[in-house]
Amino acid sequence: MFTDRLYRSAQPIWESYLHHPFVKGIGDGSLELDKFKFFMRQDYLYLIDYCRVFALGAVKAKRLDTMTMFSELLHSTLSEEMNLHRNYAEKIGISREELENTEPSATLLAYTSYMLSKANQGSEAEVTACVLACTWSYHVIGTELNKLERNEGHEFYGDWIDMYASDEFAELAASLKELMNDLADDLPEREKAHLEDIFVHTSKLEYMFWEMAYNKTMWVDKDSFLNH
Amino acid sequence: MFTDRLYRSAQPIWESYLHHPFVKGIGDGSLELDKFKFFMRQDYLYLIDYCRVFALGAVKAKRLDTMTMFSELLHSTLSEEMNLHRNYAEKIGISREELENTEPSATLLAYTSYMLSKANQGSEAEVTACVLACTWSYHVIGTELNKLERNEGHEFYGDWIDMYASDEFAELAASLKELMNDLADDLPEREKAHLEDIFVHTSKLEYMFWEMAYNKTMWVDKDSFLNH
Amino acid sequence: MFTDRLYRSAQPIWESYLHHPFVKGIGDGSLELDKFKFFMRQDYLYLIDYCRVFALGAVKAKRLDTMTMFSELLHSTLSEEMNLHRNYAEKIGISREELENTEPSATLLAYTSYMLSKANQGSEAEVTACVLACTWSYHVIGTELNKLERNEGHEFYGDWIDMYASDEFAELAASLKELMNDLADDLPEREKAHLEDIFVHTSKLEYMFWEMAYNKTMWVDKDSFLNH
Amino acid sequence: MFTDRLYRSAQPIWESYLHHPFVKGIGDGSLELDKFKFFMRQDYLYLIDYCRVFALGAVKAKRLDTMTMFSELLHSTLSEEMNLHRNYAEKIGISREELENTEPSATLLAYTSYMLSKANQGSEAEVTACVLACTWSYHVIGTELNKLERNEGHEFYGDWIDMYASDEFAELAASLKELMNDLADDLPEREKAHLEDIFVHTSKLEYMFWEMAYNKTMWVDKDSFLNH
Repeated sequence: MFTDRLYRSAQPIWESYLHHPFVKGIGDGSLELDKFKFFMRQDYLYLIDYCRVFALGAVKAKRLDTMTMFSELLHSTLSEEMNLHRNYAEKIGISREELENTEPSATLLAYTSYMLSKANQGSEAEVTACVLACTWSYHVIGTELNKLERNEGHEFYGDWIDMYASDEFAELAASLKELMNDLADDLPEREKAHLEDIFVHTSKLEYMFWEMAYNKTMWVDKDSFLNH
Repeated sequence: MFTDRLYRSAQPIWESYLHHPFVKGIGDGSLELDKFKFFMRQDYLYLIDYCRVFALGAVKAKRLDTMTMFSELLHSTLSEEMNLHRNYAEKIGISREELENTEPSATLLAYTSYMLSKANQGSEAEVTACVLACTWSYHVIGTELNKLERNEGHEFYGDWIDMYASDEFAELAASLKELMNDLADDLPEREKAHLEDIFVHTSKLEYMFWEMAYNKTMWVDKDSFLNH
Repeated sequence: MFTDRLYRSAQPIWESYLHHPFVKGIGDGSLELDKFKFFMRQDYLYLIDYCRVFALGAVKAKRLDTMTMFSELLHSTLSEEMNLHRNYAEKIGISREELENTEPSATLLAYTSYMLSKANQGSEAEVTACVLACTWSYHVIGTELNKLERNEGHEFYGDWIDMYASDEFAELAASLKELMNDLADDLPEREKAHLEDIFVHTSKLEYMFWEMAYNKTMWVDKDSFLNH
Repeated sequence: MFTDRLYRSAQPIWESYLHHPFVKGIGDGSLELDKFKFFMRQDYLYLIDYCRVFALGAVKAKRLDTMTMFSELLHSTLSEEMNLHRNYAEKIGISREELENTEPSATLLAYTSYMLSKANQGSEAEVTACVLACTWSYHVIGTELNKLERNEGHEFYGDWIDMYASDEFAELAASLKELMNDLADDLPEREKAHLEDIFVHTSKLEYMFWEMAYNKTMWVDKDSFLNH
């Protein structure tokens, strides 16, 4: 299956997520809340553009069932997941106003712009390749972190782990993988290679997103004037 | 308000809908069922692309509430309205298979392609201008036909009139008009004129759609080889 | 080759072009100038959107040489072919102002919107399928008409036939066919079938364009208020 | 004029270009050639996507003269500027093959994806805002560096400075500024603010591009596995 090939290509990058201090810090509860708040705010902006990519999936889908799937992803993300996000943010001390007024970081813009530009230029297969690494790797991370024993540090991070380790999220990742295979298994090699590039690039951008959050980097570095 | 200007520009075209034999035939129940079946099948294809235009609204929307509005329009049309359509079609003797296998007519392709191309090329204001004439004029037609006394011919057409004369549909039309005014009231004249062109063109395409249904025209005319 | 399949699918439609009174009238010089003027003005609008489709080819092309090819098609059409068009229009009595102020007919909007929407939704293969029928069939028509003896009626139409029968135009059609085959030969059947649909639809729209010109139809018919 | 407002917003960022060691190193000839080669290879990829943004300008342009302007920018960049680039690259020891096989860096993808996504989502005004900072700021940099005395280090960098300080390049920048003012001067404030965001973001991405080149950064940092 095509997703096996994708996994093999991105495997070393995905491996690194689990060793990243941000992800490990969620797992053992040691992550400073400030870093997590930074992450949550950028992730909120991420979800808005992730929804735009789902919408492009509905635009580009050739079959009605694929169109319906993207429409449901858009709708559930925009109405349910973002609401969860808002509630969770409030719980950890980010006001609704702060959340809405978040300025985009360089890495956030890089990642979402990459998905939007590939989704605009390509067909439904490209759209699917764009959104796959995020959903699939979050489920892998959630599942791995869920195996660890939890301590009291998890008063904040436990819910996050539970969400991405959940059966619902597992199903979501599985349905996107199935769609990717349906759309790509019989494509010629040059098109498969193109989809693989997108999957590897978005996997690298996932890594950069953890880096950004851990270092709370807006643009270049903390001292640069570009952070204003 | 900008929608007043739009209404004035399209008024003679909209007037003609109410005098069109197809619309009048729905109103007095005299319309041959075959013509209505033809209409329902093309309208089913229409709704699929109408949904794509809503999806483009979500892609192009600059504010989260506008994005949410388009996402809800997409979702409710794709999951509820199209289901109503399928049930209704079955009731009047169009099987699910027939509905799904409908070939597009020239007028259907003209209308939906026009909306999709303008929505792709433009911003959220163009997207809104594209979808406005259909929803708004259907509500006007539904409301007018609802004033007439119904006879037994309405076993088929009554539901259709009820749907477009309903309060829910009135709200839908009102919310699109409000959005149009929000997005266009402070635009410069050249952009307003462009939106007006879209509104007038889609109003003419609405007329052509009634014509197409009344004459059951696929491509050029009934005898042309282009109908196969 | 994929273009052989395309040709077989559209063959009866293409056949009809040669029997159409508009095309025959160009061939034997009997066509009323008024009809030809109507055609030239709509064709001018057509070329502008045809250029937009070429531009979308440059946006979507994955290889630099394909991108360059579309860029050259855009540039030569916009700077050379449209200039030829303007000069030719002047020669037959259409002023520059009339040409620039041409209102779009329903068929013109249908055809160009169809190409633009498919080109926006698809990849470079869809873009190529969109532009192929026009260029290729004009070369076939030019070549066929060029075999006929010319009489004095050709003071206007000879140049037109010469242009589309020329070696330069033959090369242009050949290069688009070659690109189509390069992009489509190894695609899976469902994608080939989709490209074939586009080719057949644009072939039918070509027929409708000859019809429109012959009848000088703006919207529905000559007496309809929709013509204003 | 709107471009005055844009300049004021980005002024501190633009100021920083002139103090950046990469730009200063071009100016006084002290820049290590390896860094410049890295820059040239990424800049080659940049130009390819910059051309795609010009192509989107031709797609979105509402007036024929704007369309023609974007078509000429696309054509001259793709045929002339990229050829200059290839020749220049060869002169400094980058083979054609190396140039064509350049892998995109994170910053390159961030910058070009940002432009492509905004150009796809917006109208011709957004397209113009996307391409403006690069062309305009290169002319400012070229002009400033051109005031400095040149020493032998300039055997490589002199041509580069000459190109961007040239009258032709000044005209190019001036014509894009003029277009920006034509399209934006009468827009409502919310649209102006959106265009200003694009201009500020692309100005920051310009800074990141100099950083990337100076540090020869592909993805995160030199030791990261993400550089393979």
